[in-house]
Amino acid sequence: MTFDLVVIGAGPGGFDAAVEAANLGLSVALVERDFLGGTCLNRGCIPTKLWLGATSSIEELHNQARMKVASGEVTVDFAGLQGRVQKHLGATRKAMAMQLKKLGVELVEGTGRLSGDHRVTVVTADGEQTLDYKKLVVATGSKPIFFPGLEPDGECVLDSDMFLAMESMPKSLIVVGAGFIGLEMAQVAHRFGCTITVVDAMDRVAPLEDPEVSKALASMFKRWKWDIRLEERVAGVRTRDGRAELTFQTGDKLTADKALVAVGRGPVTQGIGLEEAGIELLFNQIQVDDYLMAAPDIYAIGDANGHIQLAHAASHQAHYVARHAAGRIEGPYACPPVPSVLYGAPEAMRVGMMENEAFLADFDSTEVSTAQLAANPMAQAHAATQGFVKVVWSGGRVVGVTAVGHDVSRLVTPAAMIVQQGWTADDTHSIIFAHPSLDESLLAALTAERKKVQ
Amino acid sequence: MTFDLVVIGAGPGGFDAAVEAANLGLSVALVERDFLGGTCLNRGCIPTKLWLGATSSIEELHNQARMKVASGEVTVDFAGLQGRVQKHLGATRKAMAMQLKKLGVELVEGTGRLSGDHRVTVVTADGEQTLDYKKLVVATGSKPIFFPGLEPDGECVLDSDMFLAMESMPKSLIVVGAGFIGLEMAQVAHRFGCTITVVDAMDRVAPLEDPEVSKALASMFKRWKWDIRLEERVAGVRTRDGRAELTFQTGDKLTADKALVAVGRGPVTQGIGLEEAGIELLFNQIQVDDYLMAAPDIYAIGDANGHIQLAHAASHQAHYVARHAAGRIEGPYACPPVPSVLYGAPEAMRVGMMENEAFLADFDSTEVSTAQLAANPMAQAHAATQGFVKVVWSGGRVVGVTAVGHDVSRLVTPAAMIVQQGWTADDTHSIIFAHPSLDESLLAALTAERKKVQ
Repeated sequence: MTFDLVVIGAGPGGFDAAVEAANLGLSVALVERDFLGGTCLNRGCIPTKLWLGATSSIEELHNQARMKVASGEVTVDFAGLQGRVQKHLGATRKAMAMQLKKLGVELVEGTGRLSGDHRVTVVTADGEQTLDYKKLVVATGSKPIFFPGLEPDGECVLDSDMFLAMESMPKSLIVVGAGFIGLEMAQVAHRFGCTITVVDAMDRVAPLEDPEVSKALASMFKRWKWDIRLEERVAGVRTRDGRAELTFQTGDKLTADKALVAVGRGPVTQGIGLEEAGIELLFNQIQVDDYLMAAPDIYAIGDANGHIQLAHAASHQAHYVARHAAGRIEGPYACPPVPSVLYGAPEAMRVGMMENEAFLADFDSTEVSTAQLAANPMAQAHAATQGFVKVVWSGGRVVGVTAVGHDVSRLVTPAAMIVQQGWTADDTHSIIFAHPSLDESLLAALTAERKKVQ
Repeated sequence: MTFDLVVIGAGPGGFDAAVEAANLGLSVALVERDFLGGTCLNRGCIPTKLWLGATSSIEELHNQARMKVASGEVTVDFAGLQGRVQKHLGATRKAMAMQLKKLGVELVEGTGRLSGDHRVTVVTADGEQTLDYKKLVVATGSKPIFFPGLEPDGECVLDSDMFLAMESMPKSLIVVGAGFIGLEMAQVAHRFGCTITVVDAMDRVAPLEDPEVSKALASMFKRWKWDIRLEERVAGVRTRDGRAELTFQTGDKLTADKALVAVGRGPVTQGIGLEEAGIELLFNQIQVDDYLMAAPDIYAIGDANGHIQLAHAASHQAHYVARHAAGRIEGPYACPPVPSVLYGAPEAMRVGMMENEAFLADFDSTEVSTAQLAANPMAQAHAATQGFVKVVWSGGRVVGVTAVGHDVSRLVTPAAMIVQQGWTADDTHSIIFAHPSLDESLLAALTAERKKVQ
């Protein structure tokens, strides 16, 4: 048979595309060489959040203890936590498999490659299987990348996959790369009492965020006695005498029980026949048009097309391509503002443009308005008052919201709506913000005095 | 001098009205007989949230311990907590006073009453002071009310004011009234190890909410071994031999260290010259027109007009009357959907219509779609998976959202926007929900299969 849609990769993008297409009545095959759920579920967002959730009482207790309100001790059993994580992942994969079965999606377990005109060949445990398709979705995702000298060895030098698979938490950790992935994992290690050193070649932590967010994060991490080494170039990291040894380009060295290398992720696009099928790759990223098409009848979504490396961006693209493949929509893909979130305590969030981006787009009319979390009763209640919410305006409309501090991830959906809808000052009172709530810090930022960006 | 605006009552409504009016250039006097911030800050929402925040690690630890992931013990020092609460309230009041000063608002400390044509007389510590006004805002708020036999005695029978002022937490507590106020305070007491009995004459806890929310809450509280006595009529509560003794109409008795009576709140509208000024009261509530006016040049907002007893509703009304008094707007008051939230763990939230309300408004087109929190990774991460999000549709548009469970208060602002904007199914993908987030449970409910309400 010829499937209406074949999807390669069952991460958030591929899985959602398969489900949505099946819901729309298409016949669908989904090819996955590893686990349902992809990196996000199995080696990324979800395990990290389970770690953060399981240890959140440690941080809450710590904050209240600092105020002399609470005392005590919380011990998290790392092996028990890892067991629970695996149990949760297994249950989630099982539920996903059942959903596919219920919808009649054929799950083909193996490595797929484009093998000819409208054809995919899958190498399975039982030999090769051929799938003919009318439309194809390539959703092969991404994997950790490394600069030379930073390759993980699986012993003391780990990538994020290996870090999440550890059997015990080290007593000391070097994190190379101060992006969200490294910072979330470092937060968890910190809660287990691990000594943290963060190294980055850039001049700030969270270098993709607003510089004031980076500054606030660094200030909080320094209060935790993290050693933060910025603008430092790493020559290499290796295992030596059972420990991780990092060598700077200056020749200086650092050692710790483990090193986590989290310097970035790159698309998984090699060796699966993409270029042979006429698909253009640039820095390994699949080049797509306004319809997320990489070649006739071939879509590419998620991390593989390199647009935005976030699960929810992939899912949103999946929703579009499924409907486009099913003939339900015809126009080009419109991408709403994509929220990004650093979880933990502190958290950080951003939707839309940062101050500097808005200023570059329009010198004349960029303004910012800011509210400090210290004025918010919920931040006070959790004794975590450092941080702020910043609204970026252009031409009198909200074009971006960024925040850092306690629980600011809860601002991300309202902010996504406000940015998408381009609110003006007059829209601010079109809804009622609950009192007391951290959400009011967003209202406070929206109504605060605006300062022109210069 | 004649003030452009005089405001009686410096709770969330009155304070915000004074600030907004001063911001708009009006000369303003604000009369308060007690503390800046009113009930909400001093004897209501804020102290309760500080209690909940300070004790949240207890609940987080408990949940993870149940999963055998964490162990340990957290002790919250109640006296220390009360000290911190008082410090926070004092600092907040001080900041509010400074804001008034900066804006040139005259704060008059004393009890105000309407004493003649466009005139308010305030009884202050230094004698009477007369304030002439062009416009008046009555924002006198509310206070706990009691049925006969349930009056607090300040010894073992307490109202919420007295409960929040306690010096130590009792070992056992009877809560009369299973509304949000009683349930939040009972949650805190539970975290301190207090044995809880909840008594209500209605057939469910949180009787103003969706019956399924009541059911879910009761189920969670029962897991905590709370004794929940529903459809039980109380004849009286009194202090006897140093304990609280509750007598049912059947003659049965219950005793505990303390009893908290939280059966409702009523407007503060007596003895301040309202009726003499031609203002109509109905069940003590000030009757207002579509412009929130109770008489020519006299507005009444917040709990005093009895529309909605929530601080943020008062603030929103305040924003309107200040602008209306300043001549900035002319049309009638439009009230967006007012969110209501039960804080703690579990939480509950609601915006807009409940299923039964929508059904009564339109028999033909009411539908509901529901998502269980168990499917959400953040609920899983916090080992708190009981609960759900329910979306109520009418005529193909969202008219209400209600939820119960872990951290669902974070859905309240997106839900307020969605209900206010009357989203259709097509709007669901106009924004991107961050993954993973509890917010996705709202997306899941929005996109779940709809069932017609019959």
